[in-house]
Amino acid sequence: MVKDKGIEKKEMLYEGKAKQVYITEDASKVIVYFKDDATAFNGKKKSQIEGKGKVNNHLSSLLYTYLEEKGVKTHFIQRLSDREMLVKAVTIIPLEIIVRNVAAGSMTRQLGVEEGTVLKKPIVEYSLKKDELGDPFVNEDHIIALEWATEEELKKIRSEALIINKLLIELFSKAGLRLIDFKLEFGVNKDGVLLADEISPDTCRLWETQTGRVMDKDRFRKDMGQVSEHYEEVLERVSKVLAV
Amino acid sequence: MVKDKGIEKKEMLYEGKAKQVYITEDASKVIVYFKDDATAFNGKKKSQIEGKGKVNNHLSSLLYTYLEEKGVKTHFIQRLSDREMLVKAVTIIPLEIIVRNVAAGSMTRQLGVEEGTVLKKPIVEYSLKKDELGDPFVNEDHIIALEWATEEELKKIRSEALIINKLLIELFSKAGLRLIDFKLEFGVNKDGVLLADEISPDTCRLWETQTGRVMDKDRFRKDMGQVSEHYEEVLERVSKVLAV
Ligand SMILES: Nc1ncnc2c1ncn2[C@@H]1O[C@H](COP(=O)(O)OP(=O)(O)O)[C@@H](O)[C@H]1O
Ligand SMILES: Nc1ncnc2c1ncn2[C@@H]1O[C@H](COP(=O)(O)OP(=O)(O)O)[C@@H](O)[C@H]1O
Ligand SMILES: [Mg+2]
Ligand SMILES: [Mg+2]
Repeated sequence: MVKDKGIEKKEMLYEGKAKQVYITEDASKVIVYFKDDATAFNGKKKSQIEGKGKVNNHLSSLLYTYLEEKGVKTHFIQRLSDREMLVKAVTIIPLEIIVRNVAAGSMTRQLGVEEGTVLKKPIVEYSLKKDELGDPFVNEDHIIALEWATEEELKKIRSEALIINKLLIELFSKAGLRLIDFKLEFGVNKDGVLLADEISPDTCRLWETQTGRVMDKDRFRKDMGQVSEHYEEVLERVSKVLAV
Repeated sequence: MVKDKGIEKKEMLYEGKAKQVYITEDASKVIVYFKDDATAFNGKKKSQIEGKGKVNNHLSSLLYTYLEEKGVKTHFIQRLSDREMLVKAVTIIPLEIIVRNVAAGSMTRQLGVEEGTVLKKPIVEYSLKKDELGDPFVNEDHIIALEWATEEELKKIRSEALIINKLLIELFSKAGLRLIDFKLEFGVNKDGVLLADEISPDTCRLWETQTGRVMDKDRFRKDMGQVSEHYEEVLERVSKVLAV
């Protein structure tokens, strides 16, 4: 039991692939601990990216603070340490919300669209968060009919995802980065739907605007090398933009 | 060149897995010829179902006439012979529209939902009609962003699909059959969006209401036997209901 900025970290509630979640003395708050563990291809590729947990915690904290200032409701309360973040406890809606601005990754293979194709408008995709099923792609009808979210929640999630997309595109572009696509998770607490989880180079595709250089988890997926260096560069660039 | 009820059948325009399409002297009309060929599992399983073409042509003609009477715009003009149907030529929108009332087939495997689960509301799914890609599942954002249909067309397709679902559920239920799910294709001509292709035991899942007996193409997919007999029974039952 570590007292950390006055918050007592108690038992681990659950451990995911990249983070651990701990309960605190306050049932409405949990502590998220960011690990260096990296996985890809539905868990088939596993490794560590040194310092990743630290970068993702710092960057997520910056981004959630920025989004909150712009009116987006998030789970973020405060960063507690290099790897720990205090957040509002939520019931995670079991969906991965993917927003795409440019075709890349699985979409190019599945739909025969060339990587780098700029989409006429952002695409919102939903995957059921269920590792055993390989996070299958679902649509809004499945979500409502199978009761993974209510119609009201889904409407909110979709509109928030599109607003977040605009805000992040703007921010990253000032940092010389193109936001190709990203994944969000939302949760529900007594106040309604909140943006939860993290936003980091683990959950975004970011290409350097000038050169197209890959600055995200694809460096790990595709064994491109210098993974942590690129994660750190993203953090530095965003920090600089937000410090102004 | 066969003169058939005053319509001259000219060259074959294209041949699909189950039907052939012929041009006629009138550029706004084509003749669809229904074959006995059956395929499943993305073309991996191939065979013939004797008499299927005839049944599907007769049943589709009955169903499209019924739908037209209920205000649905379809490509159907008239049945010309046992295996031939005269229809309005359309540019097919490259999407398979799947409407589900009860979980069955691919959905149960992909989403871990038990076969036979009654859905809280009908689910509309879209697959890109592209055999090389295995008809991948897409959502409305993909369709608009990648320009497979316009927003207006898609709205129309979705609302028509749901209306058709209601009308078919009603009709089949009078024939003692449950409409589990079905696939539609839409096309565009000068008058706008029309229901095209066919509706038959090849494109529907139909279970006998009383017993749950499978009356559709799953008999072929799962080697359940007596395939043509069941197709014929569906035709007979629907004919009887519509004759009243
Ligand atoms: N505010 C929150 N309250 C409760 N759980 C959360 C919150 N934010 C994120 N989580 C969950 O924490 C878990 C751990 O994260 P992670 O390691 O990324 O998991 P995963 O292996 O599912 O990607 C995830 O299930 C995530 O949904
Ligand atoms: N009214 C129409 N005008 C032009 N083409 C049509 C019309 N109705 C259906 N088609 C097309 O006829 C083709 C042949 O049908 P089918 O054998 O079922 O093809 P598939 O192998 O694609 O399932 C399909 O591509 C279908 O989209
Ligand atoms: Mg995660
Ligand atoms: Mg077909």
